[in-house]
Amino acid sequence: MARRTGRRPGNPDTREGILTAAREAFAERGYDAASIRAIATRAGVDPALVHHYFGTKEQLFLAAMRIPVNPVEILRVIGDGGREGVGERLVRAFLGVWDSPAGVAGAAMLRSGMSSEWGARMLREFVTRQILRRVLRMLDMEHEPHANLRAALAGSQLVGLAMTRYIVKLEPIASASRETLVAAVAPTLQRYLTGEIDFDRTAS
Amino acid sequence: MARRTGRRPGNPDTREGILTAAREAFAERGYDAASIRAIATRAGVDPALVHHYFGTKEQLFLAAMRIPVNPVEILRVIGDGGREGVGERLVRAFLGVWDSPAGVAGAAMLRSGMSSEWGARMLREFVTRQILRRVLRMLDMEHEPHANLRAALAGSQLVGLAMTRYIVKLEPIASASRETLVAAVAPTLQRYLTGEIDFDRTAS
Repeated sequence: MARRTGRRPGNPDTREGILTAAREAFAERGYDAASIRAIATRAGVDPALVHHYFGTKEQLFLAAMRIPVNPVEILRVIGDGGREGVGERLVRAFLGVWDSPAGVAGAAMLRSGMSSEWGARMLREFVTRQILRRVLRMLDMEHEPHANLRAALAGSQLVGLAMTRYIVKLEPIASASRETLVAAVAPTLQRYLTGEIDFDRTAS
Repeated sequence: MARRTGRRPGNPDTREGILTAAREAFAERGYDAASIRAIATRAGVDPALVHHYFGTKEQLFLAAMRIPVNPVEILRVIGDGGREGVGERLVRAFLGVWDSPAGVAGAAMLRSGMSSEWGARMLREFVTRQILRRVLRMLDMEHEPHANLRAALAGSQLVGLAMTRYIVKLEPIASASRETLVAAVAPTLQRYLTGEIDFDRTAS
């Protein structure tokens, strides 16, 4: 491997050092507050090197989380077509990712989200920033009341689906066909995102 | 502590030995196949001692899983009233248990269900035998087509709700009022259990 000039050679240790620093910074401060500059300082490299290796902060985040898919592309498919049918496109894309090699990364993220506060924070950041906010933006729902709760409810069903189908392997969900699950779960997601819900209900 | 007569004294080690044997047996063979007799043999005690300490096999299972609530009583509340409104009673009881001290045991069970094949099996056994089958029986649904899938879908939403609210603490679900979550999730559970779902749908 050719050596580069600069403060540190472009070797795998440097890459890993940046990723480690990024994971620590994202976990400690959250996605927004963790700057490329702070991550670079923590890793003992120049910020330009971080950009050179990983591109944007978002790309660095995905690399730090070892996410082998780019949510942007998948979410574009989900968003195309607007609110109508978004529940179905969402669950279909979700099952497609989990049935692919990327499912391994998803399982690792869910596991780390359960086993430590650090992992939980990373999972929250990922689900909130990379998935839910984007879905809301695509649907032009960002400024509607209860939009974040609607998105989080959809997230709760998807997390539960991943848990039961891929991790705990609860039957008959684990071996159900994708279409059966789409038929069952799509209306749930559609209602959470766009349906009538009495969010302000109090105990009767 | 007074010593009892019998093959082994009634000391805490014996109790723990039986619980360990029970956990191993339930995990290896599943709830149905693991007999009290086999568990007693594994623990090196008389089957009568197992019954003496723990009562029925089901009570032994709950003790082995360190479940501090008896699902039977809670499920009776859920079942009273039949199919109508069962979704609401189910999510309300679920949130009630998780908001109580028993929630700690639930979190431990979910975590172990994610971290090992052993834990996953125990979680499957618990969810399937202790919860889902009972709900189906109470609703007289046991022999209806897709009954197990309906129950498992309800389970997937409840698992996802527990994950996001109590473990990953995804906002705004984590701090939402119980009534808000009941309003949002009850119709989902009601539809999974009793609503129209095209389970035999194929890709269009």
